[in-house]
Amino acid sequence: MSDLLLSEQITGLIKNAWNVQVKAVTGYFNKYDTDFYYQEVAAGRNRAVYLLGHLTAANDSLLPMLGLGERLHPELESLFLGTPDKQLPDTELPSFEELKSYWEDVTSALTNHFSNFSTPQWLERHTRVSAEDFALDPKRNKLNVLLGRITHMTYHMGQLNLLKQAAIVAD
Amino acid sequence: MSDLLLSEQITGLIKNAWNVQVKAVTGYFNKYDTDFYYQEVAAGRNRAVYLLGHLTAANDSLLPMLGLGERLHPELESLFLGTPDKQLPDTELPSFEELKSYWEDVTSALTNHFSNFSTPQWLERHTRVSAEDFALDPKRNKLNVLLGRITHMTYHMGQLNLLKQAAIVAD
Repeated sequence: MSDLLLSEQITGLIKNAWNVQVKAVTGYFNKYDTDFYYQEVAAGRNRAVYLLGHLTAANDSLLPMLGLGERLHPELESLFLGTPDKQLPDTELPSFEELKSYWEDVTSALTNHFSNFSTPQWLERHTRVSAEDFALDPKRNKLNVLLGRITHMTYHMGQLNLLKQAAIVAD
Repeated sequence: MSDLLLSEQITGLIKNAWNVQVKAVTGYFNKYDTDFYYQEVAAGRNRAVYLLGHLTAANDSLLPMLGLGERLHPELESLFLGTPDKQLPDTELPSFEELKSYWEDVTSALTNHFSNFSTPQWLERHTRVSAEDFALDPKRNKLNVLLGRITHMTYHMGQLNLLKQAAIVAD
């Protein structure tokens, strides 16, 4: 099998992991009543609704980092990346329903873009690294940024699942 | 562009993600006093020490799944994959220090094996899927199993970091 075909198979695995994690987050936020998501994942820590905003803002930043355009919801950055949970009154934050629709916007846009990416494109430098720094560390490419966002989703899913009612082994 | 084949560059990114997550778990379990790890990550949920056993057992299962040999610590499977936390007295479980040394054994063995894996080997079927099922879904390969174990570590790191004293945005 050619190197290009092998590479496409592997980028396919990573895109599949993206799809699986996006689906897990989407499913989680469509499963319970709204009140459920205003609980803290652990005493004194972030609420689920905040983590939805946080994950949406973090994924939205992939658009500029991968050279795909501007953020769809730039207003989320200061609220969910720059400000901890519970520092602002909920009236200054988007509602849970708004956040769910932003999550859908952002992840659909990204998933569409990913279907057209070629393997050499994935291995290009991302837009926040200079050509000089990229030459020193070619791992700083677009695919590595995507891998980081996948693990970022699973990191917070581990926290979100602490809220689930049914106890499951090591969940 | 690096002289490495595209496919090798990409498997390199995934191996790097493995190394980064293993290092994060190792660092976490070497940072605090032993008592710290006997706390639950959230009220009524798993203790950190249990999650160390759980992550060790899950990673140990990669050895047979990737065709690399038998588990190094098969005794962990029933304790940390088949039994929820706090069902057995701590006297029947390995100590925290023993678990840390098992974690080192398992992850070092795996990391050594990974350095010798070729890309075509990564794309072979893993040992728990039949040739027939693999033909239907070639994603069920060894590299995909590794990706799953990487996200498994980040999932539980999200929980473990809830125990950290200092509050950090969306941690």
